Amino acid sequence: MSGVSDTLDLFADPIDLTAALVDVRSVSGEEDEIADLVERSLRRHAPHLEITRSGNAVLARTNLGKQRRIVLAGHLDTVPVNRNFPSRREGDVLHGCGTVDMKGGDAVMLAIAALSQNARHDLTFVFYDCEEIEAERNGLTRIERELVEWLQGDLAIVCEPSGGTVEAGCQGTMRIEVRTTGKRAHTARAWMGENAIHGLGEALSKLAAYEPRQPEIDGCRYHEGLQAVKISGGVAGNVVPDEAVLTVNHRFAPDRSVAQAEAHLREVFAGYDVTVTDFSGGALPGLTAPAAQELVQAAGGTPVAKLGWTDVARFAALGMPAVNFGPGDPTLAHTQQENVPVSQITGCFDVLKRFLLS
Amino acid sequence: MSGVSDTLDLFADPIDLTAALVDVRSVSGEEDEIADLVERSLRRHAPHLEITRSGNAVLARTNLGKQRRIVLAGHLDTVPVNRNFPSRREGDVLHGCGTVDMKGGDAVMLAIAALSQNARHDLTFVFYDCEEIEAERNGLTRIERELVEWLQGDLAIVCEPSGGTVEAGCQGTMRIEVRTTGKRAHTARAWMGENAIHGLGEALSKLAAYEPRQPEIDGCRYHEGLQAVKISGGVAGNVVPDEAVLTVNHRFAPDRSVAQAEAHLREVFAGYDVTVTDFSGGALPGLTAPAAQELVQAAGGTPVAKLGWTDVARFAALGMPAVNFGPGDPTLAHTQQENVPVSQITGCFDVLKRFLLS
Repeated sequence: MSGVSDTLDLFADPIDLTAALVDVRSVSGEEDEIADLVERSLRRHAPHLEITRSGNAVLARTNLGKQRRIVLAGHLDTVPVNRNFPSRREGDVLHGCGTVDMKGGDAVMLAIAALSQNARHDLTFVFYDCEEIEAERNGLTRIERELVEWLQGDLAIVCEPSGGTVEAGCQGTMRIEVRTTGKRAHTARAWMGENAIHGLGEALSKLAAYEPRQPEIDGCRYHEGLQAVKISGGVAGNVVPDEAVLTVNHRFAPDRSVAQAEAHLREVFAGYDVTVTDFSGGALPGLTAPAAQELVQAAGGTPVAKLGWTDVARFAALGMPAVNFGPGDPTLAHTQQENVPVSQITGCFDVLKRFLLS
Repeated sequence: MSGVSDTLDLFADPIDLTAALVDVRSVSGEEDEIADLVERSLRRHAPHLEITRSGNAVLARTNLGKQRRIVLAGHLDTVPVNRNFPSRREGDVLHGCGTVDMKGGDAVMLAIAALSQNARHDLTFVFYDCEEIEAERNGLTRIERELVEWLQGDLAIVCEPSGGTVEAGCQGTMRIEVRTTGKRAHTARAWMGENAIHGLGEALSKLAAYEPRQPEIDGCRYHEGLQAVKISGGVAGNVVPDEAVLTVNHRFAPDRSVAQAEAHLREVFAGYDVTVTDFSGGALPGLTAPAAQELVQAAGGTPVAKLGWTDVARFAALGMPAVNFGPGDPTLAHTQQENVPVSQITGCFDVLKRFLLS
């Protein structure tokens, strides 16, 4: 894209829009240029929208007096580039940092925005910053604090890569530390001590034998998980260690609250010293809501459960059904070989046009 | 001791000699002053001895043409002082860095050396450096390479603290790494990966259930051990880890060779990837040797097994029976409150006089 300093043509093919967005470097915390470009482009090509800024987030919305409002959200930042900048088109595949996560989704949102003067529902577009880093810097945290009405509506569509399928709700996540204590001693006189590392054996056996639930909710099958993510302990090569710590990450389906997940973990690790270190609640799929049903119908496929935690949960916490729907294979996100088949960009654009504009 | 720069009176009470040695700071690597003092004192008060130097080690021996030669060894260095310098006498207890490990033993050796012109056996005295740090810097390593005949004899007595009891032989030590590998995956899709930390559960259970042998050799009961000393693994808080490592320290009785100990560990951890990272063979007590029996008789008590690894094993590797025998409680070694009841210094001196000089 030669005219970065000018504006994007929002009426161009969303595939070309994706490439143009990928070619503006926007690693988390450095979104000034891309946010300015998005704002200028919306002001030029979608003058029917009410537009505002919040830091490096750009917010735009219709005010058509419709019964329902659909919120579309996409982050503008990427993980650090990794010899995959700028974009590179090979046949029907677009390669480059952000092609999957998530400038394809952003491009579709911009294209819909440009065409939204007669939309079937009122629409809000949220292009935000700092999604790829710590939650407190996430643009949505700031917007929720200062401009929460820009996030509210009857359905949120987070255009993160979902392979063009509607991924509904999301699983919650909780991390705990399982800690054992013992008594130091010289290993030559080990019976005078008590080995804290040995004490973790039973906890690891429980993990190895754990059978995760796979509940079905609104037709979506979730798949829980309970995994050790870190283990540490040891004082010196000749000392019986007096402390060991096992960190466990639990992913839980959204039919369980954070409190229920914690109670479950305390039951699994009964007898151990358990500390919850962080958690995020899941989001129910909410597919029974009318707006969600319309989207599912427009997408034509069977919605599936979102297993990872995404910003969908932030919208769910505001009381709205929320789904992921965007082009790209999510397992390619954050990889050096990130790439998207361009047909998924077109397919996603077509579904949203059918749902929102027809 | 006011006259540090002069000489020690080797005919003084060994208790006073101990205090004088403690008052010469000699942290590992800084033994110049104490080695010079020991050499000067031996040259002045024991002119019947052949004396040589090897770095900061001082070697002295009789050449009386006796049938047997007894080697007495003591290191001159200490761990770093820790608000326990200089020595402090409280009633019948001498406090300070080195009182236990092992200037009480050094003092007894010096006192015996001064009286050895008519000894019952030929005697070699080895005062050496850098015992408290890595083995390759240990003075005995250098002496064995350059002056091995100064270490050879029919019995070695390492005057390390043994509570005034003859501690015979020593256990061997071996460290292994037990490594598991798996496959990384996002914890939200854990079934796509394989958790290496979970794979250590069985190894920890084996450790917790392990029953160490307690074999009796030459009347000494050993006590083996198998202890986790370190565990580590983990990639990130949301990643199924693909590697975990458990470090295990095995202490084995001297009826097993290094090769037998390794074979045993490979059997215990069958199915795991096991790497031996370091080892030191044990030393058989050798108490059936005539010179060792004389010492045991002079000491009057029941000899016990040495459980920790000490330089005794270096002498055993030269084909000699070797024991620990010295004043002080070994569990106080390296502690801030290091102290020795002065009666143990006198008692140890009396036993060695009876054995070597009477």
